[in-house]
Amino acid sequence: MIANQDGFVVWLTGLSGAGKTTIAQALEAELSRRGSRVERLDGDTVREGLTRDLGFSKEDRDKNIERVGFVAKLLSRNGVAVLAAFISPYRAARDRVRAETTNFIEVYVAAPLETCAARDIKGLYAKALAGQITGFTGVNDPYEPPLNPELVLHTERETLDESVSQILRYLEDRLLIPQVESKYVAANQ
Amino acid sequence: MIANQDGFVVWLTGLSGAGKTTIAQALEAELSRRGSRVERLDGDTVREGLTRDLGFSKEDRDKNIERVGFVAKLLSRNGVAVLAAFISPYRAARDRVRAETTNFIEVYVAAPLETCAARDIKGLYAKALAGQITGFTGVNDPYEPPLNPELVLHTERETLDESVSQILRYLEDRLLIPQVESKYVAANQ
Repeated sequence: MIANQDGFVVWLTGLSGAGKTTIAQALEAELSRRGSRVERLDGDTVREGLTRDLGFSKEDRDKNIERVGFVAKLLSRNGVAVLAAFISPYRAARDRVRAETTNFIEVYVAAPLETCAARDIKGLYAKALAGQITGFTGVNDPYEPPLNPELVLHTERETLDESVSQILRYLEDRLLIPQVESKYVAANQ
Repeated sequence: MIANQDGFVVWLTGLSGAGKTTIAQALEAELSRRGSRVERLDGDTVREGLTRDLGFSKEDRDKNIERVGFVAKLLSRNGVAVLAAFISPYRAARDRVRAETTNFIEVYVAAPLETCAARDIKGLYAKALAGQITGFTGVNDPYEPPLNPELVLHTERETLDESVSQILRYLEDRLLIPQVESKYVAANQ
């Protein structure tokens, strides 16, 4: 374990199916391998303890991000690497998290709607496009893309390893993680 | 800063006015002085980011402790010292936090109701006893004392320094914090 690592928050935002959680999981495994203290926060990991009273209204989405932001604030200022994967469609809510956390890194997972809908991993796009689900981000609910993200990942044309490599390289360049040999570095050189 | 300290949770439970927050604040100052990573959680520090939708029903009190417990879980398993000061009147809710956190130390701040009501720092006991506030723990809402707490503090007859010393000694004995010279050790020898 690294003695006194700086904390940071990798905040993955984008449409459902863009690849946020998949990227976060791969990144978590690699950071753990490098000895970082790391916590992955996503819908599944926070629902039971933190957000199970919340739905998908704008108010509830904002509350969701507010609570996750609070947790990310406490973890990041204590040297923990936080990997947060949330649609987080509202710019203002993301900017509030940026303002209160340590080393906030906004990563826009920017697969186009058509790609996400074609993947439709959870079968939700079909239902949303058929009007059976309302309030579905990108179909009948807004998504506000980041204006100035630290990174943009195009998962419609990049492999998972390439996406993870870009984040790792960014973290290495900022000296937030140690630079070590890995398949990810090799993938980009 | 300590390189790889073990995380823990000092959970202060007891009536309003028993001295939980005062003890937590003094403990926070001393642990910071010793180089620990420390976070103090109490009504004031968590309300804005985590619990401002909650009231004082049993359901809301349970949600409050559940969310704080989630935060304490993530912090304590990443080596942070968590000092939590909440009335937390329900035994089952506290036991759930015990089950999911690292090195949970239940500290019963056991000033009797008469002492707390006589202090009445916030003027709330007078109102509760006059029936102007309902759902007030100890007056017209239940408090379930811990059955087997790691520590019991009798703030009606101990000084603040004595109370803090007992917690410090316990943490030192468990090797959770370094033993250093301080006014607190002196106060008990």
